[in-house]
Amino acid sequence: MSSSDIFIGETIGTAVLILLGGGVCAAVTLKASKARNAGWLAITFGWGFAVLTAVYISAPLSGAHLNPAVTLALAIKDNDFSNVATYWGGQLLGAMIGAALVWVAYYGQFLAHLTDKEIVGGPGAQATKVKAVEAQETGAGPVLGVFSTGPEIRNVVQNLATEIIGTVVLVLAVLTQGLNDNGNGLGTLGALITSLVVVSIGLSLGGPTGYAINPARDLGPRIVHALLPLPNKGGSDWSYAWIPVAGPLIGGAIAAGIYNVAFA
Amino acid sequence: MSSSDIFIGETIGTAVLILLGGGVCAAVTLKASKARNAGWLAITFGWGFAVLTAVYISAPLSGAHLNPAVTLALAIKDNDFSNVATYWGGQLLGAMIGAALVWVAYYGQFLAHLTDKEIVGGPGAQATKVKAVEAQETGAGPVLGVFSTGPEIRNVVQNLATEIIGTVVLVLAVLTQGLNDNGNGLGTLGALITSLVVVSIGLSLGGPTGYAINPARDLGPRIVHALLPLPNKGGSDWSYAWIPVAGPLIGGAIAAGIYNVAFA
Amino acid sequence: MSSSDIFIGETIGTAVLILLGGGVCAAVTLKASKARNAGWLAITFGWGFAVLTAVYISAPLSGAHLNPAVTLALAIKDNDFSNVATYWGGQLLGAMIGAALVWVAYYGQFLAHLTDKEIVGGPGAQATKVKAVEAQETGAGPVLGVFSTGPEIRNVVQNLATEIIGTVVLVLAVLTQGLNDNGNGLGTLGALITSLVVVSIGLSLGGPTGYAINPARDLGPRIVHALLPLPNKGGSDWSYAWIPVAGPLIGGAIAAGIYNVAFA
Amino acid sequence: MSSSDIFIGETIGTAVLILLGGGVCAAVTLKASKARNAGWLAITFGWGFAVLTAVYISAPLSGAHLNPAVTLALAIKDNDFSNVATYWGGQLLGAMIGAALVWVAYYGQFLAHLTDKEIVGGPGAQATKVKAVEAQETGAGPVLGVFSTGPEIRNVVQNLATEIIGTVVLVLAVLTQGLNDNGNGLGTLGALITSLVVVSIGLSLGGPTGYAINPARDLGPRIVHALLPLPNKGGSDWSYAWIPVAGPLIGGAIAAGIYNVAFA
Repeated sequence: MSSSDIFIGETIGTAVLILLGGGVCAAVTLKASKARNAGWLAITFGWGFAVLTAVYISAPLSGAHLNPAVTLALAIKDNDFSNVATYWGGQLLGAMIGAALVWVAYYGQFLAHLTDKEIVGGPGAQATKVKAVEAQETGAGPVLGVFSTGPEIRNVVQNLATEIIGTVVLVLAVLTQGLNDNGNGLGTLGALITSLVVVSIGLSLGGPTGYAINPARDLGPRIVHALLPLPNKGGSDWSYAWIPVAGPLIGGAIAAGIYNVAFA
Repeated sequence: MSSSDIFIGETIGTAVLILLGGGVCAAVTLKASKARNAGWLAITFGWGFAVLTAVYISAPLSGAHLNPAVTLALAIKDNDFSNVATYWGGQLLGAMIGAALVWVAYYGQFLAHLTDKEIVGGPGAQATKVKAVEAQETGAGPVLGVFSTGPEIRNVVQNLATEIIGTVVLVLAVLTQGLNDNGNGLGTLGALITSLVVVSIGLSLGGPTGYAINPARDLGPRIVHALLPLPNKGGSDWSYAWIPVAGPLIGGAIAAGIYNVAFA
Repeated sequence: MSSSDIFIGETIGTAVLILLGGGVCAAVTLKASKARNAGWLAITFGWGFAVLTAVYISAPLSGAHLNPAVTLALAIKDNDFSNVATYWGGQLLGAMIGAALVWVAYYGQFLAHLTDKEIVGGPGAQATKVKAVEAQETGAGPVLGVFSTGPEIRNVVQNLATEIIGTVVLVLAVLTQGLNDNGNGLGTLGALITSLVVVSIGLSLGGPTGYAINPARDLGPRIVHALLPLPNKGGSDWSYAWIPVAGPLIGGAIAAGIYNVAFA
Repeated sequence: MSSSDIFIGETIGTAVLILLGGGVCAAVTLKASKARNAGWLAITFGWGFAVLTAVYISAPLSGAHLNPAVTLALAIKDNDFSNVATYWGGQLLGAMIGAALVWVAYYGQFLAHLTDKEIVGGPGAQATKVKAVEAQETGAGPVLGVFSTGPEIRNVVQNLATEIIGTVVLVLAVLTQGLNDNGNGLGTLGALITSLVVVSIGLSLGGPTGYAINPARDLGPRIVHALLPLPNKGGSDWSYAWIPVAGPLIGGAIAAGIYNVAFA
């Protein structure tokens, strides 16, 4: 794979991942959405199939890492760090593009959530009135939650540990895919299984922190949240931002170590 | 594939798609249905597995496009428009047949929803009394929703953008299927993955407009809604009808362009 | 396949199918069950994965028809009726065994549902007291629903049409499996897809009648319901019993006809 | 496979299984979890995909039994008991490690559930106050439920029968996998199907006892529950502990017998 294919593939793939992953959070938590209150099962399947779609689309170009922790783990496993920066760059750029696309697709829903004004709808004239909550009270939290993760109980040690544990499981499954599929030409099936592993991690380990398990998935959208001109959006919770970056990277490195000791 | 195989395959396949897709909307939203209030997750899995079933049945005949936007994108990709009219004709006819079959399967439920009269049940004598809402108030909206999509917030620009974005994701996944399966003979697995991509789009991008992402899926049933002799059914919302036709076609063309630039 | 393999395979497979399919109905609808009120999505996935499990287990012995309508359709397609009686016999016997096993697995839950007496628990001494509803009022209907289907709106024509339509979809998917998998050795994947087709039919066409789409699935358990010594169980609704037998058989024959005209 | 690979593989695999399986119980039932009240469908899919993830990771090392009942059944089928102790040892150790990891990942949630004190959060300073129930009343039961199973109606005969029946279904599916995949190289697909069989058993047969269907899954975490320094945690219900050990082992032996008679 050429560097440009890697960069383009990771940008497109991570954009799709965050568009769909952020999208399901918007769909379930924002007002004036048909999926409103569809629940945690919808969130976890939504993120899982976001991974499936994004991997499926980008695999032919870049191999579909879509996650700096996966890139780091593969580099450690193969002791080859030459493409890490290219992968990471595409992943962060893609995550930002994806978050911006969520803003486009759910433009009216964000406004309805954050303002108590009538939705006028911009260029298209046929606007509908939507009742909105007072933004200061309930609107800003869910809107940040569309972009980035946050813990239910704020505890650095537990939050970091939960992100590390979740990422170890994810990366071990990614690394053993090669062993399971060896010679069977079942790469596409591996994409499906990896996506169900992500559903599993969401269902089982997502309760405490919302399972970032991917630095780009959290940091990219958080930057976009800080930049977007949304009214009453509140802060971007930068004090927590390092945990969903550090935790997954540590988890990826640990998984690579386990793999090299027990499986290689 | 012969023209008649294409036409018959697309007609049968799209009929199955709309029968099952419209069916799950009827099942979840109409009165006197065992699936009443089963929620958005049921809707999205119902549409996804409708795609799986329809693709599986029609693939041997026509390759299972079942969506004018997919047909357009494949024609652009291959620069071959010779079969487009045959595909589109079968898709529209099939969508109308499917919508009519939903009407047959949920005949009593539609009547219960739209009338406050006792259900007498037609030819079969063993009718049950069903309490019905006043149709003018709450009945007509959900009934149209069984046939065609409509936005939560009516905004031409956002609604069009959401349909375009959703269709780009769908068509990119369809186009890259060939790259993923190349030489592995995994077409059947591709059908499964495509269906889960549709679940993904529904969960993540269906909130604002109900994700038509397919002109035939929306237009065919809307025509049937206009023709059917349902009491108190209300209008067919023709002012919105062009968006779920234009949006997906634009999205399909954009996806084909992205494919030809980045993946070919 | 020998006749004895066919009979044993269909008996074991259909027993597993009804054990799991009836089981999920018991789990969701009966009192004192951890799955109580898990909803229609649980019912439809439960039946779908019941098909997957039963097909997977019995396919090596009998090819896993597990449904008299499937057996009829394959016989019409191949114009070979020599094994129909063997398949049907195994299917009906298996369905009865499966229904009896549901009764064993949910013994206390059935009693709790039907009686307002203290559950004493039989041979095992450590019984727990369970509050029960008055059986005449709410208990008997859900208990019959664990065994057999019944319509929300009783209308012979609509009920029959809905069962026919659902079975046509199922059997078309079963018949085209051979075309999709031809030469790829993906029979196991076909079992998975067929099970998701059953989920699809449940979600989309199950609302009006509860989707028997299989004569043995309905008749066998209904016979067991009539025979079982459950207190206050009420009648077995024999007046409806012919519809979930006739509808699926008609649907299977129609699907075989469509297949022979359009696909062969 | 060497003895050390078997032991390491079963330890890692069963640790992942119980981490994810116990994790989804914690996520759905404990306070201050984003998945709180996600319902039985989340529990059953969570356990199913826990099996998928654990099998996928450990299959290359040990063949991924992860269940003493599966090991026993395979030993009976092949009449080779030489590795049984190695498998069982790894499984029990892994189950204990997995349960301890659940405790780490949900540390604050356990404390919030069991105490009515302010959560101070340990080493990490940024703690959040969480309102907690009085532990004696509602907290201890769900906490034990994160670790081990318990019946809705306590009845030795029914509880044992339900565990036996569920395990027979599971082990028959595991044993026939070899027949279904024979020569197709679809082991990875077999892992997916086995995981959906586990979802099926959970949905259909989990209502009465919570479907241990695996002695290590129940006994290992119960030991950890007894050892962990959780305040107000209550007893570990040792009087029930023999049923989810004996039932699955009996079920595995019965399934091996059925297999050797009907399928071999």
